[in-house]
Amino acid sequence: MSLLAVGTLAYDSIETVHERRENVLGGSATYFSLAACLYGGLALVGVVGDDFEARDVELLRSRGIDLQGLEVAPGKTFRWSGRYEADWNTRHTLATHLNVFEHFDPKVPMAHRSARFLFLANAAPAVQAKALAQAVRPEFTMLDTMNLWIEIAREELHHLLRRVDALILNDEEARMLTGERNLLRAAAKALTLGPRLIVLKKGEHGAFLISREARFALPSYPVEEVVDPTGAGDSFAGGFMGFLASQGNVEPGTLRRAMLHGTATASFCVEGFGVESLARASRAAVDARCAQILSLVSV
Amino acid sequence: MSLLAVGTLAYDSIETVHERRENVLGGSATYFSLAACLYGGLALVGVVGDDFEARDVELLRSRGIDLQGLEVAPGKTFRWSGRYEADWNTRHTLATHLNVFEHFDPKVPMAHRSARFLFLANAAPAVQAKALAQAVRPEFTMLDTMNLWIEIAREELHHLLRRVDALILNDEEARMLTGERNLLRAAAKALTLGPRLIVLKKGEHGAFLISREARFALPSYPVEEVVDPTGAGDSFAGGFMGFLASQGNVEPGTLRRAMLHGTATASFCVEGFGVESLARASRAAVDARCAQILSLVSV
Repeated sequence: MSLLAVGTLAYDSIETVHERRENVLGGSATYFSLAACLYGGLALVGVVGDDFEARDVELLRSRGIDLQGLEVAPGKTFRWSGRYEADWNTRHTLATHLNVFEHFDPKVPMAHRSARFLFLANAAPAVQAKALAQAVRPEFTMLDTMNLWIEIAREELHHLLRRVDALILNDEEARMLTGERNLLRAAAKALTLGPRLIVLKKGEHGAFLISREARFALPSYPVEEVVDPTGAGDSFAGGFMGFLASQGNVEPGTLRRAMLHGTATASFCVEGFGVESLARASRAAVDARCAQILSLVSV
Repeated sequence: MSLLAVGTLAYDSIETVHERRENVLGGSATYFSLAACLYGGLALVGVVGDDFEARDVELLRSRGIDLQGLEVAPGKTFRWSGRYEADWNTRHTLATHLNVFEHFDPKVPMAHRSARFLFLANAAPAVQAKALAQAVRPEFTMLDTMNLWIEIAREELHHLLRRVDALILNDEEARMLTGERNLLRAAAKALTLGPRLIVLKKGEHGAFLISREARFALPSYPVEEVVDPTGAGDSFAGGFMGFLASQGNVEPGTLRRAMLHGTATASFCVEGFGVESLARASRAAVDARCAQILSLVSV
């Protein structure tokens, strides 16, 4: 396996203006993996409680996701519940129960410690640091985070940022992390914190990649009907990292095409509730959508 | 002249979080013309009061903008004042004084009635309709409007929409006009109202073009420091229409390149207060920025 992901698996309760569902399979590593597996095998490190459904394990396993690093701990699986407003951009977190994730001590199986591509999905920086410490010289490590950690674990996060290649974050997080309102300046400032690459997700408004040498921007794929935006960012990261791992390099041209794949996988994610649409997407459908996005921006 | 613009010339009082200036040259037709003149000559039809400064007339004239259709009426020039919040996306209109524009009866000079490209800048639909009635078979007419007219003159606006080729509007206006929250659906619904082309402006998030046959999206040019967003939409329209008129056709490829030019002229506009940065921009600078935007989206 050249790709390793560490993060949460969860059961989410999600409320949109149209629908409410409880205990839907979710979690940052789940969405990431279901997108990344379209590009080849990957290994997942995470923890679930003894209430985690066999059919959910089976879903992941059937996609070629290596679950050797999936720990089953006594107790309940991580739970998140949230509500979206009609504009989709406003999300209210109603409850977060870490449950078994609270004392999670990630153990990367020996077989996967040399993975060339490493994704540290959204989790407490302390957990992310423990996972990173077990990786043996990954060629490309990407970190995700969220407003909560920027607020309560800023120092640990800064320490971690000096040891990763890339940081993926949304506009709100970029502003919070850097104190810069202008997104371009925020991204430029984030570059000074350590990563040599910043991927800025702007939801329905697309994504932006910035490094010291290059800038790249893509609009999002215009989805006819957003059903549930949960996991869009993680699915983006999955398409992005999955594609990079499948190419085995992070050349500028590969990074640009990875942005295209991230945009495509995220668009499938939001078309269904929870993981349902993402889990149905085929690599051929993703490739077709990439071609559509390309034609959308071709002058 | 192959391009004719009808709209407002104004003195604006603008407040940003950094600065406040009074009686700054503005107006939809002013911004449009200062962008469009980078692509060749154009004729402007509008009205100003007897307080309109000679140096402002001179600014427009020096750019090769034909002012034969610029009426000077007794009274004060149209005035608008507004305030932007720190995020730039929230704009509060503090006051609108139509002044001489209230009884404006546009008279398109005979010499310009056969202009092939016509832009009806934001104004009351009744005024726009009067101007349109004087045009002799324009090949391509684009209409701009705003939330106020959608609210108070919806019927006249709908009537007008059936007689234009293109409609340019921002996301809020698109939602208001169509009752559709999803922007893609809103644009698709706007197409059923008459125009065969919709240009959706999303401010810092770029622009989107949709016709029955094609879709095209561009991110905005990442500006390091927004100084004043006033006129960005009109500058976009000016770059867009100016480029089309300079090419003399509305083929799909020309439309896509016109979107690029609109994006570039709008980016210059927001980098200065009022028209100051736009009025300083050269065609070479705009072309260079178009190339940068192209490289930004090149996969």
